[in-house]
Amino acid sequence: MGDSVSIGLLGLGVVGSGVIKLIEDHQEKLVHQLGAQVQVKSALVRNPEKARDLDKERTHLTTNPDDVLNDPEIDVIVEVMGGIEQAREYILRAFSAKKHVVTANKDLVALYGKELQEAASKNKCDFFYEASVAGGIPILRGITDGLSSDHIQQVMGIVNGTTNYILTKMNTEGMSYEDALQEAQELGFAEADPTSDVEGLDAARKMAILGRLAFSTDVELDDVEVTGIKGIELEDLQNGDKLGYTMKLIGFANFDDKKLEVNVQPTLLSKEHPLADVKNEYNAVYVYGEAVGETMFYGPGAGSLPTATAVMADVVAAIKNMRLGVTGSQVAESHFEKELKPADQRFGQFYVRLYTKDEAGVFSSISSLFHELGISFQRILQTPVEHNELAEIVFITYETSLANFNNALSKLQDLENVMEIKSYYKVEGDGDNDMARTSETL
Amino acid sequence: MGDSVSIGLLGLGVVGSGVIKLIEDHQEKLVHQLGAQVQVKSALVRNPEKARDLDKERTHLTTNPDDVLNDPEIDVIVEVMGGIEQAREYILRAFSAKKHVVTANKDLVALYGKELQEAASKNKCDFFYEASVAGGIPILRGITDGLSSDHIQQVMGIVNGTTNYILTKMNTEGMSYEDALQEAQELGFAEADPTSDVEGLDAARKMAILGRLAFSTDVELDDVEVTGIKGIELEDLQNGDKLGYTMKLIGFANFDDKKLEVNVQPTLLSKEHPLADVKNEYNAVYVYGEAVGETMFYGPGAGSLPTATAVMADVVAAIKNMRLGVTGSQVAESHFEKELKPADQRFGQFYVRLYTKDEAGVFSSISSLFHELGISFQRILQTPVEHNELAEIVFITYETSLANFNNALSKLQDLENVMEIKSYYKVEGDGDNDMARTSETL
Repeated sequence: MGDSVSIGLLGLGVVGSGVIKLIEDHQEKLVHQLGAQVQVKSALVRNPEKARDLDKERTHLTTNPDDVLNDPEIDVIVEVMGGIEQAREYILRAFSAKKHVVTANKDLVALYGKELQEAASKNKCDFFYEASVAGGIPILRGITDGLSSDHIQQVMGIVNGTTNYILTKMNTEGMSYEDALQEAQELGFAEADPTSDVEGLDAARKMAILGRLAFSTDVELDDVEVTGIKGIELEDLQNGDKLGYTMKLIGFANFDDKKLEVNVQPTLLSKEHPLADVKNEYNAVYVYGEAVGETMFYGPGAGSLPTATAVMADVVAAIKNMRLGVTGSQVAESHFEKELKPADQRFGQFYVRLYTKDEAGVFSSISSLFHELGISFQRILQTPVEHNELAEIVFITYETSLANFNNALSKLQDLENVMEIKSYYKVEGDGDNDMARTSETL
Repeated sequence: MGDSVSIGLLGLGVVGSGVIKLIEDHQEKLVHQLGAQVQVKSALVRNPEKARDLDKERTHLTTNPDDVLNDPEIDVIVEVMGGIEQAREYILRAFSAKKHVVTANKDLVALYGKELQEAASKNKCDFFYEASVAGGIPILRGITDGLSSDHIQQVMGIVNGTTNYILTKMNTEGMSYEDALQEAQELGFAEADPTSDVEGLDAARKMAILGRLAFSTDVELDDVEVTGIKGIELEDLQNGDKLGYTMKLIGFANFDDKKLEVNVQPTLLSKEHPLADVKNEYNAVYVYGEAVGETMFYGPGAGSLPTATAVMADVVAAIKNMRLGVTGSQVAESHFEKELKPADQRFGQFYVRLYTKDEAGVFSSISSLFHELGISFQRILQTPVEHNELAEIVFITYETSLANFNNALSKLQDLENVMEIKSYYKVEGDGDNDMARTSETL
């Protein structure tokens, strides 16, 4: 038990400090699991003078990356510095020096995951990144280990806490998008510049990583179609609510017949769906496997200690492999050729809200247009509108292909009595089955 | 890639057949993960003549356990025969023959887990039992690997599908316990003799296993206090609903100050709790870790293929370890001395429903009794009762110790104007915070 394993940190922000805290707090458990003590020998920082909550006697703070990357005593490198090009370079250098790497950097893994994995395999090193998706939730392990013998068909995730917080506030307190965003910023759930979150880019990175692992195929960030929640209107959430749906920003990844579909978009989700109850800043990932059926993994998507927990799970796994003289990298190699699913093979139900002239025959012309395209309506909601001489019509279609729906939308735009298509969203799952309630609102 | 690993089955019922199906369906993925084919060489069965959906050319069916346990070509034994003593004996023989063992047998693991783990370690074999708790949900891996560097403080589980189905039907459709049980039996969610499920014994076994892994301590089945849902009354579910709670059969395990509490009991759970939305036959396990905070794992708790998925995850892990020349058994060794938490150190809120004489001063005498013991009421609900000259009072206490609450109950019984304590339940989490609604019902 006199053994000790040294790790090096690249970066020492909130996650890095969390890693140091966990290692100090749980040394006894680590020794029990690994048969060795774990210590953070060095940490690369920008400014070593900056006061930090850690014992400088034990961890050497340095501004020179070589002190971490080239120290022969360091076996595992934890990259928590963020950013892309610099982090990529350091990680590649770490692999060349035969060090295992754990990262929490979703931007990096989404963009360069394949290259980094290949570099790891070439050098017989481990490359783990559990913390890059859904913070403290052990979802990547759930997929690669827990469902290792299943054929995963679909992954749906609420993988961005900021947008889930905003949508929850709109849903439960009737806030506008702008007010909910402002509250999220005041509480620290949204950054001053929320672009990456509200436009869905953060979620897209996580879905690229999830898709790659779930389907063993090379999902690239560019393969993910993204629509964010910026400027989403309360009225659409309320209409959804009346019809039995909750608006969520859903990352959706599907793989059947070896054809891939990955996207992130605001979605009206049946209230019966397990993801519909995931509230506030929480994250959850729903996985549908051919054999296992429906599973869901729920937890905090961010935060210093939750994220550090995921980093440490990877560090422990890497140290175990190292001490056993093996690596686990083979699990993450991609296996299937990628082929994206075209729009005429992507099916779904859709919600549409539009303004029409308030005159006889409008609804009939809309419904014959859809009828000609073979699209039926499952629900229709007609609500009063304050604008003069306008009517508002809301409907949810039965399942149709995305290509067909897009075609319908463009023809709808051309109808002489349709003034404006206000919004349209994808719909997942069955809403309120009490049709009486729907008819009542007709 | 010409390599092949042989496994042997003890038992070939629904789970065993599921294992064979998964191995056949996912051979390509298995080869990719393991660098070897996997085949089921032999299966111990009671009657080899019974028609089965499998290729008898490939799997040898035998009634002689030695054909499986002593075959030097077989490296991994999958025990899916059920029962206790016979299974225990076979597994101990398997370890003596240096074979790794995977089991789905919760009864066995709950009772003899410690002994079997020690036999495995002694023989440098793996002993895995993911399928024994919550079927297809990779919860044991989530605890041992995903949260390996955290200090788990609490585990709460809906780990019995039968009782969750019954309570869901009572909740959502206003069925009586008896009708819901009958429906569950007709649909195959409950057995003809539902004792083990409805009396909470099945859940207790799973909580013993979860507690052992989560807290690294020797939780025995006898440490688990059990109350089932047999004869539970719809009225208590409805009262709970009015106050913001959902009735669930909750397995509760807590470990702080190295003192242990494990029990299974019907619990009024705040509707805001992540477990409150787990419906029908689904299972979920909620884990609270000091660093990670709240996480939850959701999925099917039973079924041939979901359970087989968990078995196969263990088989894959065992084969990986075997081919790498290592075992993973160290993770499951217990680490802390066990000390059970006495009733005066167990705190909670409680729901009580009682019948009193319908006369002035009754409520005042009850509330002074509780006041003397330092217990305050958080919610009070007074409902009309059909019995002549009786009043019904329902209340939820603020937090108090179990010892103090038990004391209050026994004194309540002695009050001259209290006719009957109809029911009492533990309460978890905050209910409806809209106090106006509660006062309205006073």
